[in-house]
Amino acid sequence: MQQYFIKENFENKSYTLNNDDSFHIIKVMRKNVEDKVYIAFSDGSRYICSIKEFINNRVIVEPYKKVDIETELPLNITIAIPPLKGSKFEFLIQKATELGVSNIVLFESERNVAKLKNDKIENKISRWEKIAKEAAEQSKRGIIPTILYKRSIQELIDDCSTYDYKLIAYEKESGNSSNHNLKEFLSNDLDKRSVIAVFGSEGGLSEKEVAVFNDYNYKSIGLGKRILRAETAPLFFISCVGYFAELS
Amino acid sequence: MQQYFIKENFENKSYTLNNDDSFHIIKVMRKNVEDKVYIAFSDGSRYICSIKEFINNRVIVEPYKKVDIETELPLNITIAIPPLKGSKFEFLIQKATELGVSNIVLFESERNVAKLKNDKIENKISRWEKIAKEAAEQSKRGIIPTILYKRSIQELIDDCSTYDYKLIAYEKESGNSSNHNLKEFLSNDLDKRSVIAVFGSEGGLSEKEVAVFNDYNYKSIGLGKRILRAETAPLFFISCVGYFAELS
Repeated sequence: MQQYFIKENFENKSYTLNNDDSFHIIKVMRKNVEDKVYIAFSDGSRYICSIKEFINNRVIVEPYKKVDIETELPLNITIAIPPLKGSKFEFLIQKATELGVSNIVLFESERNVAKLKNDKIENKISRWEKIAKEAAEQSKRGIIPTILYKRSIQELIDDCSTYDYKLIAYEKESGNSSNHNLKEFLSNDLDKRSVIAVFGSEGGLSEKEVAVFNDYNYKSIGLGKRILRAETAPLFFISCVGYFAELS
Repeated sequence: MQQYFIKENFENKSYTLNNDDSFHIIKVMRKNVEDKVYIAFSDGSRYICSIKEFINNRVIVEPYKKVDIETELPLNITIAIPPLKGSKFEFLIQKATELGVSNIVLFESERNVAKLKNDKIENKISRWEKIAKEAAEQSKRGIIPTILYKRSIQELIDDCSTYDYKLIAYEKESGNSSNHNLKEFLSNDLDKRSVIAVFGSEGGLSEKEVAVFNDYNYKSIGLGKRILRAETAPLFFISCVGYFAELS
């Protein structure tokens, strides 16, 4: 059953879906009155809702049955990464959302070739939010991950000071078998905690940048002996965290 | 340093690279005589090699220094999945290769919408092998994963009877918190073992198909509470196995 998001807390009343979702339900899914859809509300609750009527091409639904299955990971995972070239960032948003990420933070670094123009940032973020929303709907998430943009590493560090765990994936730690920082992090009780993990773009982070993060207590982690592409490394990380938080 | 594969066991002699790799070294990487490249040999050994000369647009290299860093996971991971639509399978090959997969087996199932035409299979496999080779070079793998094709589930089962561990990822086990099969598998000593994990296409595997695999001792595993796309589920699995085999 297809899921949609409504940006309101749940109340036992009828809801009018927005234009995009209404179009999707009527034209793509070809649903009729009395058909059912999943609706996720801003407070995290999810209901199977029944289609009550169509008014001016908008779909009106009413709650039918509460869904008690929790699909969110029990911790907040934030990944921070500079802009990537081509469609790689869009791919990353989709996959990270399926795997359970809470927030994706873009930040400007020394070596990222892909640059965001100031006047394009808002448009780009809208587009990325749409990708996150669609992936969250498809994977039946309870929330839509947020996409944020930070103009510098200092801004990123300042705005993310309250995380329980702070990590930075560093290529040079890949082959270092005496680095146990990832294992130590994963052996913690992750329930209701928050972690931020920083990754580099295609060109990696500079030693100087890594040192700045280290100064702010971001621990360097290695992700195995193979060289992972920029968009693959966060997926490996989120998969491992998800496993330990939910299945171990 | 860029890596290339030579399909011979290592001997202390000169090697002539093939047309594609020579073109890449000369035209894309713009290398000159005495520049260095990584070469991985069929026996798994890897050497930094020195470019000796160019003859008829082919690059001649000679071994310069052995590379002692092992980049292969200590176990054999095989994933089996039906054909997927569009470019999803190509994406999966690239990412699974980076993460350390050994073999990728395509098989025909009831519900896969993407169908391979008999007369196109060889061409398709050549194309996919090229993607695996490029991803293996980029991620500095010691081997190139193999791509195989099985016409039926029975053929897949018959040809894969010798694996130490046999698993099947089943959507219906996603929310089942009493299924500990993944955890049990990951708590084994994975060193020098082999595992095959079966996944469904976009439409999933039918209950009947899952039952057939179960009859042949494939244990059903869940991959967490969110619905992962067909191409994402194997990446979650390989990431977890890689972590336990190499980093835990």
